[in-house]
Amino acid sequence: MKNRNTQPKPLFINKENMCIALDLYQLTMAAGYFERSKNHTSTFELFVRKLPENRSYLVAAGLEQVVYYLNNLTFTDTYIQYLKNLPLFKNVSREFFRYLRNFCFQGDLFAVPEGTIVFANEPILRVTAPAIEAQIIETYLLSMINYQSMIASKASRVVYAAEGKEVIDFGTRRAHSPQAGILAARACFIGGCIGTSNVLTAYELGIPAIGTIAHSWIMAYDDEFTSYKDFQRVFPENTILLIDTYDTVKGAELAVKIGKRLKGVRLDSGDISLLSRKVRKILDNAGLEQVKITVSGDLNEYKISELLKKRAPIDSFGVGTEMVTSKDSPALNGVYKLVEQEVDGRVIPKMKLSEDKVAYPSTKQVYRFFDKNGRFKKDTVGLADEKYDAEALLLPIIRSGKLSYTIPTVREIQKFATGNFARLPEKFKKLDCGTSYQVLFSKRLREMKERISRNLIGFDKK
Amino acid sequence: MKNRNTQPKPLFINKENMCIALDLYQLTMAAGYFERSKNHTSTFELFVRKLPENRSYLVAAGLEQVVYYLNNLTFTDTYIQYLKNLPLFKNVSREFFRYLRNFCFQGDLFAVPEGTIVFANEPILRVTAPAIEAQIIETYLLSMINYQSMIASKASRVVYAAEGKEVIDFGTRRAHSPQAGILAARACFIGGCIGTSNVLTAYELGIPAIGTIAHSWIMAYDDEFTSYKDFQRVFPENTILLIDTYDTVKGAELAVKIGKRLKGVRLDSGDISLLSRKVRKILDNAGLEQVKITVSGDLNEYKISELLKKRAPIDSFGVGTEMVTSKDSPALNGVYKLVEQEVDGRVIPKMKLSEDKVAYPSTKQVYRFFDKNGRFKKDTVGLADEKYDAEALLLPIIRSGKLSYTIPTVREIQKFATGNFARLPEKFKKLDCGTSYQVLFSKRLREMKERISRNLIGFDKK
Repeated sequence: MKNRNTQPKPLFINKENMCIALDLYQLTMAAGYFERSKNHTSTFELFVRKLPENRSYLVAAGLEQVVYYLNNLTFTDTYIQYLKNLPLFKNVSREFFRYLRNFCFQGDLFAVPEGTIVFANEPILRVTAPAIEAQIIETYLLSMINYQSMIASKASRVVYAAEGKEVIDFGTRRAHSPQAGILAARACFIGGCIGTSNVLTAYELGIPAIGTIAHSWIMAYDDEFTSYKDFQRVFPENTILLIDTYDTVKGAELAVKIGKRLKGVRLDSGDISLLSRKVRKILDNAGLEQVKITVSGDLNEYKISELLKKRAPIDSFGVGTEMVTSKDSPALNGVYKLVEQEVDGRVIPKMKLSEDKVAYPSTKQVYRFFDKNGRFKKDTVGLADEKYDAEALLLPIIRSGKLSYTIPTVREIQKFATGNFARLPEKFKKLDCGTSYQVLFSKRLREMKERISRNLIGFDKK
Repeated sequence: MKNRNTQPKPLFINKENMCIALDLYQLTMAAGYFERSKNHTSTFELFVRKLPENRSYLVAAGLEQVVYYLNNLTFTDTYIQYLKNLPLFKNVSREFFRYLRNFCFQGDLFAVPEGTIVFANEPILRVTAPAIEAQIIETYLLSMINYQSMIASKASRVVYAAEGKEVIDFGTRRAHSPQAGILAARACFIGGCIGTSNVLTAYELGIPAIGTIAHSWIMAYDDEFTSYKDFQRVFPENTILLIDTYDTVKGAELAVKIGKRLKGVRLDSGDISLLSRKVRKILDNAGLEQVKITVSGDLNEYKISELLKKRAPIDSFGVGTEMVTSKDSPALNGVYKLVEQEVDGRVIPKMKLSEDKVAYPSTKQVYRFFDKNGRFKKDTVGLADEKYDAEALLLPIIRSGKLSYTIPTVREIQKFATGNFARLPEKFKKLDCGTSYQVLFSKRLREMKERISRNLIGFDKK
């Protein structure tokens, strides 16, 4: 049988196949720019039009993976052959495919450092490159920045709600694919989590891997206490016991029999506020004040906040599904838009007028103003060459294809994010925040937009 | 500086590192089972406790990637060394790591074929293997089955709403990571989409890659019509033009000037119902009745249904964000639970009693009953050895580690899914369905659960 799929496919992304991990139209446009000699230097900006519901800020994340992609993107013969054979490309010249074979990203990338707090309509990154290079990378850049920024932002909310108690990412099993689990663990760490259950992320990034036992461990025994003792024997310094398999209170009573070497207990079901209190009392009565209580089970920032409001004696939160899917707002609508082209030495600002989807033209910069205490006061999105007594957020990352930036470790990024967050005024941190941070467009930018809108409308009316 | 991250990391999953793409507790439990001689043959079942909101059925998907994983899972020295060095494992014997070094999955896998319609509490797959093998694979299995089943189910709803019009997956840029984009495209195809914008998925699975141009193509030109003509020159047989960049009606008026070679137009913004009607009229008046109208832009099953109710003259729908994130219900809470162990020749059914999280014990099968027209009548979840005049949904896929099943192509899976869906009674297909399909538990299973609950509670009271 033709096309018989005899071997199961893993559907991994790798260094070789990432060149076609994109939307087909990137390649038709690339071919079109090539064939019609329209490979002009172009600037695209990636930004979020509107913050997700309940969010009043975003934590930018995903840049490191974007840098990897841009610095390693090539088209090997296998994929070029596949594209050549698509009926769609039959009128496209051999030269285009030869161009692809020699493709490498030689443009410029500006971006806000990972961990930077950003808001709607602020460019998170900006690419300037020949049109084909800038176009082909759109899909991958969006998918990396959209997902990691969404998760870092969600994690930041969860960590904020936890008021200094530890938050751990437990989400891999509900993340949207194994790779999403890895990236989520990274983004959650940037957002302030202290570690992850995901071993591969811990390995890759050198961050803490955290975890002990599931219900199946307890269930593998005929009696619960033997399961506790056995675990304690194998992990004498890390005896954190899951105590809700049959009955949480009884589980706690058995756990205290482990004695001084018990390190913690985990509750994963039931009325956590009530049960954590009962468990704390059982622990304390047994003289085990140092034993920590971890809770898990469909937690989110609202539930954590509620638990802490009720003064539930919880030391750490394992958060999974809701954090790694950003469940209350599971898609970040980042877009990547052409804002400028240089044609025969002439710089032409670009914008579209589609209903409800108007954006600002030209190459921009984000200028952040601070109050006298060093807190964020307001941002101005202006042209890249404007001068303000403010911090310019977009930094040069890649220049003419070469990395011109020291990639920070994820711990450094977390530290940077924490510092950034500390400077965000308190009112924007509220979980149900209705308050919008002030992002203005500069006078020059507004005037340019006005002028171009008029011209475009004028043009259409001709 | 120590741990200096000089090279950016892609964070890909691959054949080598997938062994640690799991939650740490799978490995602590594995070590515990090993050290305490508890590596008994165990059966785990993967099922969804409760259907997501608005869903009345699920389309099972992800099995092919599970099979790849089970048949290729090994622990290389690099990762074993990493684990050995974790302080957590310092009391674990060298023998355990030697065991890991020789690890390969030698158990049995039963599963419903991909594309099968399933309901809450029905095992989608069942693993029987030594405890360590069955435990270690939990995270990866859940992440694959949860995500692909969720997306295939969502796509099935979108395709149903489209009433026979074409639906195309456009979602990669908003999927949760590049790999999620690939898997989503596959799951959407299983759910009935005719193709995807994702080139890598099209390449890997031999399905149609679909796409033409984005707004940037139009914006790269000084005038819209030249951009249309140029695209037509390069893609004479595939001239599908995006006409909403500046003004949809004017865009349509320019597009018809392309003449008979125009194949289609795409609308991506504005009042789609109204605009599609205006555009259809412009096309028809120009004698271009054959030209197709595609629409896109934050579509979902409800919006599509609404558009078709209003008789909007649309030929195909490009659906992205909402489909690949299952936006209205972005996490499928599949769980993987120990249901049975064999200890010294004795078969012991297992269950936990955690509040709200009780499951049924023992190795099960799903029996599906049909009415005289071949439509689904009801399902019974019973013990694996019960006999009914019904279809047993769980089939043997892997026996003692060896593939015993012919992996179907994704086109065959789509066909199978379509056939399965056709046999689902109409009332369960409604988009806002409140009707639950009847899933019963067999008498033997209910009695067993009752008996074990009593014993467990009895045990706890001791």
